[in-house]
Amino acid sequence: MKDFTVDNLTDEVIAAYTAKAVTPRMQEIFAALIRHLHGFVKEVELTEAEWFAAIEFLTATGKKCDDKRQEFILLSDTLGVSMLVDAINHPKGGAGTESTVLGPFYVPASPAMAFGADLRRRHLPEAETCLVTGKVTDEQGAPIAGSTLEVWQTAANGFYDVQDASAPEWNLRGCYTTNEHGEYALVTEKPVSYPVPTDGPVGRMLAAGGRHAFRPAHLHFMIKAQGCEPLVTHVFVDGDAYLDSDAVFATKQSLVGEFKPGVGGEEAKRFGIEGPYVKLEYDFGLMRVR
Amino acid sequence: MKDFTVDNLTDEVIAAYTAKAVTPRMQEIFAALIRHLHGFVKEVELTEAEWFAAIEFLTATGKKCDDKRQEFILLSDTLGVSMLVDAINHPKGGAGTESTVLGPFYVPASPAMAFGADLRRRHLPEAETCLVTGKVTDEQGAPIAGSTLEVWQTAANGFYDVQDASAPEWNLRGCYTTNEHGEYALVTEKPVSYPVPTDGPVGRMLAAGGRHAFRPAHLHFMIKAQGCEPLVTHVFVDGDAYLDSDAVFATKQSLVGEFKPGVGGEEAKRFGIEGPYVKLEYDFGLMRVR
Repeated sequence: MKDFTVDNLTDEVIAAYTAKAVTPRMQEIFAALIRHLHGFVKEVELTEAEWFAAIEFLTATGKKCDDKRQEFILLSDTLGVSMLVDAINHPKGGAGTESTVLGPFYVPASPAMAFGADLRRRHLPEAETCLVTGKVTDEQGAPIAGSTLEVWQTAANGFYDVQDASAPEWNLRGCYTTNEHGEYALVTEKPVSYPVPTDGPVGRMLAAGGRHAFRPAHLHFMIKAQGCEPLVTHVFVDGDAYLDSDAVFATKQSLVGEFKPGVGGEEAKRFGIEGPYVKLEYDFGLMRVR
Repeated sequence: MKDFTVDNLTDEVIAAYTAKAVTPRMQEIFAALIRHLHGFVKEVELTEAEWFAAIEFLTATGKKCDDKRQEFILLSDTLGVSMLVDAINHPKGGAGTESTVLGPFYVPASPAMAFGADLRRRHLPEAETCLVTGKVTDEQGAPIAGSTLEVWQTAANGFYDVQDASAPEWNLRGCYTTNEHGEYALVTEKPVSYPVPTDGPVGRMLAAGGRHAFRPAHLHFMIKAQGCEPLVTHVFVDGDAYLDSDAVFATKQSLVGEFKPGVGGEEAKRFGIEGPYVKLEYDFGLMRVR
């Protein structure tokens, strides 16, 4: 019988999980996971009180998850893990638009929206009207008709609909489809920078790290087209104060969009916009599946 | 503005959490945690589907926790982390009895029990009666009167009371106190080997690793005395088939007890035992606080 010690335990645990793991990939994941997890505990010489605090933290993180909130995704995001997974799976330098994190507030199956339709289901007085237009092409620049763009964003009060009991259902969420020229258009409000939720375990972690919780303003896009890789990305607002210190490390220079004053006139009339507005033009490039 | 890539992200995240961390210890923990977490993700080149499976696994683990079950402790136990923390904080070679894991089924404030009282609140036909006696001393061998021994164990059906709706409250849990000679005694049933719960995420993980879920039979003890370090440990049953492959890596040679046939006669009469029984004598040494 083995006596387990600091010196032999890690190898024993790895052996226990790799001898009969169901696939070579699981074997690889178990070995690396156990080595790094034990390596962390040994390196910091974790105390029993710290271990128990970690158990309580992880338990509270799980308890905070429900159908409207995913605190473990938020934890992954704020520790830079989501962005690392993104960077590994979508390395820089490929053709097509760069990707970034999904975030914890994606809701599947948002309502279908007509070309140019207004994404707002209410009008906050502080909201700035924003027209967004552009096209979806493949990496060769060929327009893709019938591609779908799921769009979601915070309101001008800094909350996603699912965080805000007063928001109408599906406020600032919808699914647009490109026309025969690969074009999309939508009317919405200009996104604002906002803090990720800080009333849960992740908020306590950010405080322990002395970090602010803000994300630079952005629109979320999930874009799909037949025969192409799905694209999950943001368009950030140029000039935002938090572009250099995003709480979730998700910024990329190529994803910063220019929000210009709207020209009004025919354009405003075409999209039913009254009063001043800003306009973002942003084209997306999808990668064909090989 | 930084573009985050696989190459620069980890250092950026560490810098974000260590620049203003609330204490030097938090700084140390953040730096090591982020380095090892990112190191794991990079080493296995985690796919987006695997990342999402991990999010779902952790969320389900949190959801499985309630006042009677702690799935994150079970996860820590089955990955050898609990035992590693124990080994770091209670290195081998000290005086006093060796420690081992707390496990996920400890319940605080179990009922006070008289010297020699029966821990069973029901009698299962398959249970083997077991007398346990011994003394609690300090590391010099001086008996400690008035020390408390919280004892908990599985029943002969393989379940702790909190796992078994048919079990009476506090079945096989109680808190004994040593007499003026530092002695304790209790009557119970001989523990059996049993599987850790496999109906949750940890069960699925063990299956993915091709591991059995069994723990060798043991009694849990948490022993406290004024002026001494608390001791959390097990006494294992000699000859158990799982001593070499404990699902939670918690075995130590010095913690294996000898369960001998009871001699009957005066001893049986003293403890009110009828019929055959086994007997364990086990002394515990506590460490004085320095």
